[in-house]
Parts: sequence; structure tokens; C-alpha cells
Amino acid sequence: MTATRSVLAAQATDFPRWYQDVIAKAELAENGPVRGTMVIRPYGYGIWELLQQAMDRRIKAAGAENAYFPLLIPESYLQREAEHVEGFSPELAVVTHAGGKQLEEPAVIRPTSETIIGEYLAKWVQSYRDLPLLLNQWANVVRWELRPRVFLRTTEFLWQEGHTAHATAAEARAYAIKILQEVYREIMVGHLAIPVVVGRKTRRERFAGAVNTMTLEGMTGDGKALQLGTSHELGQNFARAFDIGYLSAEGRREHAWTTSWGTSTRMLGGLIMIHGDDAGLRIPPLAAPTQVVVLAVRDETLEAAHRIATDLRAAGVRVQVDTRTDQPFGRRAVGWELKGVPIRIEVGPRDLESGVATVVRRLRLSDKAPVELATLTSTVAEALAADQAWLLDQAAARQSARTTPVATVEEALEATDWVTIPYDAVGEEGEDRLAEAGLTVRCLQRPDGTLPTEDDERGLIAYVARAY
Amino acid sequence: MTATRSVLAAQATDFPRWYQDVIAKAELAENGPVRGTMVIRPYGYGIWELLQQAMDRRIKAAGAENAYFPLLIPESYLQREAEHVEGFSPELAVVTHAGGKQLEEPAVIRPTSETIIGEYLAKWVQSYRDLPLLLNQWANVVRWELRPRVFLRTTEFLWQEGHTAHATAAEARAYAIKILQEVYREIMVGHLAIPVVVGRKTRRERFAGAVNTMTLEGMTGDGKALQLGTSHELGQNFARAFDIGYLSAEGRREHAWTTSWGTSTRMLGGLIMIHGDDAGLRIPPLAAPTQVVVLAVRDETLEAAHRIATDLRAAGVRVQVDTRTDQPFGRRAVGWELKGVPIRIEVGPRDLESGVATVVRRLRLSDKAPVELATLTSTVAEALAADQAWLLDQAAARQSARTTPVATVEEALEATDWVTIPYDAVGEEGEDRLAEAGLTVRCLQRPDGTLPTEDDERGLIAYVARAY
Repeated sequence: MTATRSVLAAQATDFPRWYQDVIAKAELAENGPVRGTMVIRPYGYGIWELLQQAMDRRIKAAGAENAYFPLLIPESYLQREAEHVEGFSPELAVVTHAGGKQLEEPAVIRPTSETIIGEYLAKWVQSYRDLPLLLNQWANVVRWELRPRVFLRTTEFLWQEGHTAHATAAEARAYAIKILQEVYREIMVGHLAIPVVVGRKTRRERFAGAVNTMTLEGMTGDGKALQLGTSHELGQNFARAFDIGYLSAEGRREHAWTTSWGTSTRMLGGLIMIHGDDAGLRIPPLAAPTQVVVLAVRDETLEAAHRIATDLRAAGVRVQVDTRTDQPFGRRAVGWELKGVPIRIEVGPRDLESGVATVVRRLRLSDKAPVELATLTSTVAEALAADQAWLLDQAAARQSARTTPVATVEEALEATDWVTIPYDAVGEEGEDRLAEAGLTVRCLQRPDGTLPTEDDERGLIAYVARAY
Repeated sequence: MTATRSVLAAQATDFPRWYQDVIAKAELAENGPVRGTMVIRPYGYGIWELLQQAMDRRIKAAGAENAYFPLLIPESYLQREAEHVEGFSPELAVVTHAGGKQLEEPAVIRPTSETIIGEYLAKWVQSYRDLPLLLNQWANVVRWELRPRVFLRTTEFLWQEGHTAHATAAEARAYAIKILQEVYREIMVGHLAIPVVVGRKTRRERFAGAVNTMTLEGMTGDGKALQLGTSHELGQNFARAFDIGYLSAEGRREHAWTTSWGTSTRMLGGLIMIHGDDAGLRIPPLAAPTQVVVLAVRDETLEAAHRIATDLRAAGVRVQVDTRTDQPFGRRAVGWELKGVPIRIEVGPRDLESGVATVVRRLRLSDKAPVELATLTSTVAEALAADQAWLLDQAAARQSARTTPVATVEEALEATDWVTIPYDAVGEEGEDRLAEAGLTVRCLQRPDGTLPTEDDERGLIAYVARAY
């Protein structure tokens, strides 16, 4: 098995290379022909579909409705919000020709949809009765990336982007926080088993056009940070640029307050980098398209393998049967480990005679155990629940062990993993110094770990790290 | 109520105008800012989501897996298949600049993905053991439309496109037919309540690059035809262009046989045009995001309205409560009729005293009936099932009544709705004459109504109609 495992670079030796190897060997994705684009293969897309369903349910529970806005945005729309156009201009893909002719006004492929959705919010919001207006869309966006990396930073990616309009700043803020805490945080922790640090960005790291950006940051296996989702208070910036106004109950014309928030296929990159090990992927059971693979060791155990699978499916488990009895057993077993399937059940002839099958859990590979066929379903259900919790615990333990409190920028510059540091000791000048060394302030928290608002200026704690 | 209904043009007077009015007033969609694009509003998107889920389940049951391929395709890919590039070139949107620079090779926005998927099928298919390879993707595509119409023909639309590779022509054909009959036809008839004529296209109407295109055609309220989905046998055209080859069991290198098949947001246009009436939309219950609206007539019946909704939801019905007691009752009622919600339950104070609520079915607006609260749930369940069937019956009766068999092209030219005519009496020359009069051969069937293969040349029946 060692030989086959060496198809992957070791994490400790070359983490980025390991990441690329896993993506290729587990058949998650490939590079597309246009630079920086990606092809998401069925196994990777299956993980995305489950994640999307879980996220979509929570977004709807938070009151937002799905809609769909066009891919192509008139170039002039982006220019209406000064910071927004400055932030996104370098990344735009521009359609200049269509239908065999040069276009009168070039159209950009959406890098995000604040502008085009702003145009329609302005039409749909007339009175305070129309507020809040809560929209979400599942879409592809294009941002020209200089240093692309599959899932983490691709020229095209898939995401959901929420856009809402509210009557007051307080309501807009409360909703942006609700999405962050009740939708995003719950999905990261509950579905992906990823512990996250939740905070707000510094001015330097804000979304272009926002008055406040809040974020969730996870720690990768090599001790770096990965931004997994953001939620923005946009103040009245876009409401003024697109004239999103309403008549208040008192009959006054007011500008609305808007928010936007997004999570993307980057979460798949997080899943890989945060849970993977030298044997490959480890997928939390709730996020796994295949939770259990039943591996028929020989032809004569195929029927029993199918019977076990049928029982498990009836219990609501997502099961696949590996019928490739003409291929070497070891290679098949290692292949499933590489793909991170939480549980493998090996059905061999001798085991069957004793009324058992061998259960191997991806999290405890050395721990093969014979389980009586009669109790297989309950054993599997318990193992899936336990392993979901265990992955979260492991990631949380690592994050805690590899986060060091420091007092000065000098100490932060010397650290290898994450540090926490009083933000008053950093400041915008300190951020510049960190940036020169490839470090960023990932987010700010209050000393008690809670989320500061945009008004909290002093006494905050900064998380500083290298980031993907 | 008459006054409010007149927000819609009458179908008999101006069907295209009625169509536009319904889309606007029922808040299904709007035009986008770039010519020919559309914004799908939450109500329209809700119908799409349900349709998508139903279609996705059937596609998966047919063995295909979802994946995702890039939006941007190198221009050179399209040029590899001669007919394909000729067919699609006039409709392409081209990205010439990105990331602030002119691109070395322009990229086109996918108008369909045979070429880019072909490139990857070539990598993934090596041996006969890799076949069949069955893929599907949900995506947006862009085709520059000269005469756009919301849902029916838009510059950008949403769709699913399936792409498969097989070892033999017979297997490819069988799968293309399976998708047509077991996925598409079942969804049109079973979910959308749309009766369809299933046949193959003439050479003139084939997909660019296909050796055979099969289609499903529905009849709109004004007696025209609407193509609702297509399934193509691509022969070895794309396999040769992209070198999709495999080593056979006998050790010979062979080209694969491929298929592609698609359905799109155009189905929403079909739903509107096929089922709508002068009062607005009529949505088949299985396809309706809101199957029942419970309308509280006054404030004092709000609680009862919510209680009724809770009971219905517990029975699996999709329910919305209309709490807008400050707005005129008539306008609210007509609004729900316009949106095509299958059942409206009016909860008024006097009714409540008698232990009843008034049930109004969208298909029988004049037929208001008091229903005892205790039997409401079962009454609603029966009505939903009956109305799903009734919409299909109505559409089928119209299609049958407005299809006339004729013997000559001259007679076909005089007809107002659909005609059937022996294709031997038409031929390619006759098709040209029909085309001059704005008529097309929608599809060919065998005399017994079954699907001809690409080899059936003589003795076929042609459906001829004007089409959207």
C-alpha cells in the first residue's frame, strides 16, 4: 500500500503539491483550457451539490429567495460606484464582439453582481413595505486571476451571492450578521466540520464598495489561513449609485441600506486542505457523496455486498458498491482512501462464513474491525456520526495548538503559523509591514472572541497569518 | 375584477402581447440591460427550481452524473468541427480582453459545450471499460439572438446539457432515445402537464454537427409549435474532431460515438404559452412553487388562515398565507389568479362561523365552494391531483383538435394551426417552400406515431407549423 500511496506528495514536504496531487488523483477537478479555469469532475461536483443543498436550505430559512440575474453587465454599471470599479477593473473579462459585430457598449462578465442587482433593486423597492428585499442567486462569476489555483482562486468559479436591501443601517447590519453566523458558520461547522474564526476585516481588506466586511477563516493543514465566506455591509454606497430609494412610513424619500454575501467552490479547496492527510482526502460524512463503499473482495461475495448496500440505503446512508473484482484488492482499497470515503466495508468469503464483514474507517485506517452483519447498519450509523464530530475536533485542536498570542509586529513576523495580536499594536502601518512579509490581518475580534461592528475601533484582537 | 384582469391583453387579440404581459404582471421575469438577456425573478425562478429538481432526479436515474465545465472556450475549439462552427459562429459572444490585456487567443462564451467537453472526454476515455461515459451539466449559455423573447429565445439562458460517449452507434442511439422518452417526455407530460409530439428533425433542422436530432414539440395557446427539448446523435463527428478514442476488448483503437441533449428555461415559456388563459398563468400543481394560497379575508381570520396552512404543510402541500388584509380583497384574489396558483382558500369570518372555508380552483374560477375545515386537507389533495390531470387533458384536446391531416404542401400553406402531411409529399424542396411562408417541419414520425431513426427515409409523417 505504501507504493500506491506515494502517488501523492507528502504534506510535510510540499503541501501545495500534495493539494494538486489529491485533486488530480481523487478525480475532483482539472485545469480548463482557458488559463485559470477549472473542470469540476463528477466526484468533486457531487460534494458541491450536497454543500449547495445544505447552504440553500439555510439561506431560504433565513428568508432570502433565489433569483437569477444576467451574466453580462454593461461596462458603465461598474463605473457608478468608485471603489467598486477600482477594485474589480483589473480582473474583468470583457466581451467586445457578439453576433458577428463589435458591441456599441462592451459588456463585462460579472465578477460579482452588486451593480446589476442594484439596478433592479431600484425598480422593485418603492415603499418601506417592499423592505427588506432579500435575494440570493447561484451563479458562475469570472475574475481574471494572476496566480490561479484550482478551487481556491480560479478565473471562473461557482458561488451563491446574496443581495439585500433594508430600511435602516441597523437592520442591514443585523441581516449581514445573521447570514454570517446562522447560515455560513453553521454550514462550515455543521456540514463541513471546519472550525472557523469569525471576525471583521480591516479597512485594507474590505470588499470594494463595502463599509464593513465580515469573514470566516479556517486553518489549513500547513497552518495558513483560508477565507471561506464573507458578508458585507454596503452602507448606502450602492443605494446612492443605483438610486435604490423608498418612501418611508412618514412619507420621506430615503436611500435603502444594502448588504451582499457570498460563498463559493473555494469551500471545496478548504475541505481538502483542512481535512486531508497523506493518504488523501477525508470527507466529513455529512458532506460525502459516498458515505460508505461496500467492496466485494471476490465474485462470490458480490451478492452479499449488494445486499449490505441495500440495507444501508434503506437506513438513509449514501452507498456505493465496488464490484471491480478483476482489479487488485489493495489498489481498490487505497483508491477509496484517497477519495476520502468515510467508511469502507470489505466483504470477503471467509468473513462471510463467520457472519461478519470488515469495517475500515477512513479516520482510523489501522483499526480494521470485523462487525457482525446483523449489527452492521447501526455500527455504520454510529461511526458516521462519531467521525463527523471527530474531524471537527481534530481541526479545532490543530487550530488552537497552532495559534500563538504575541504582543508585537516583530513577534508576528517571526511566527510560522497563526498569531493573535492586539490590533492597537499593529494599526494600518503595521499591516503594511506584515504585508511586505506576506502576512495579512485575517480578521479582528473583540477580546472575548465576539464579532466587532464597524464602529469598534480600539481594543480589538487581530488574527495574523499567511493566507491562500 | 374585470377591470383588474384587463391588465393583460386578451389571448385572442394579441397572443405575444398577452405573453409579455403575463411575464411582467406575474413577476416571472424582466428584460436585462444587455439586449436579449433576462432577469428571472423569484416567482419564475421558483418554478425553474422545482422543474430542475424533477429533471435532475430523472437524469441521475438514467445513469448520468453531473459535472461542470468552463464558461469560456478557446475560439479554436469550435473550429474543429466544420458544421458546428458554421452553425454557431453567427451567435457567439467573444471575450477579447481580460485582466486589462488583449488575450492572445480570444475565448468564446459557451453557446453549448460539445467542443470543450469533447476535449475532456478524449482524456477520460481510454478503454472500452470507460464506456459508456455519461455526463450532464447545469449551466448558463450565451447565443446572440436577433429577435429575443423572454424565456423562449434569450441571449443568455439556463439549461442542462448532457454529453455521453459510447462504444457503438447502437448504444449511443439507444441512450439518446432513452433521454428523450424516459427523461424529457416524462417531465413534460408528468411534471409540466404538457402533451408533446416526439419525433426526429429533418436534415434541414438538425443541430449543427449532429447526424440525427430528435425533438419534443408542444402546441401553444395560439396554435403554434414550441420545441421543448432535443436529443442528438452526434455519430463520430465530435469523436473524430477531438480524438475521443478507445481501445476495444479486441485491442483495436476505435472512435467513440457521442450524444448530446438539452432542455432549458425555454420550458418556462412553454408552461406559460401552453397553459395560460385570459386571467393569467395556470401552473400544474406539481410544478407550482405555491400550490395553495390561504387568503385571510380580515385580521380576525389571520390565525385560522395560519392554522389551515400548517395543516396543509404537514400533509406535504406547498402553501403560502396571504396576510395583506389592508389591501382590497378583489385585487388580492385576482393577483393569485394571475400568478396561476392552483388553489385559493379564502378564510372569511362568516365562513369560519359555519366551520367552512371557500375553496377556489384556478381551473374553475366560477366554481367557488365552501368546504368543511375538517375535510380541507383531503379536498385539497384530491383537487391538486385532479387539476394536474385536467391541465394535461385540456392541452392534449386542443393539440388534437387543432392538428389537421393534409395531403399537399399547398394545403399545408393554407392551414392556420398544425398540419400533418406525408413527408414524401414535402421533401427538401417542399421544406424550402414552407420556410418562405414562415412554416417549418417540426418533426417526423412513423405513421403509427413512433419515433423514426435516422435511417427511416420513406413513408414518414411530417408535423408542419409556425413555431416560436
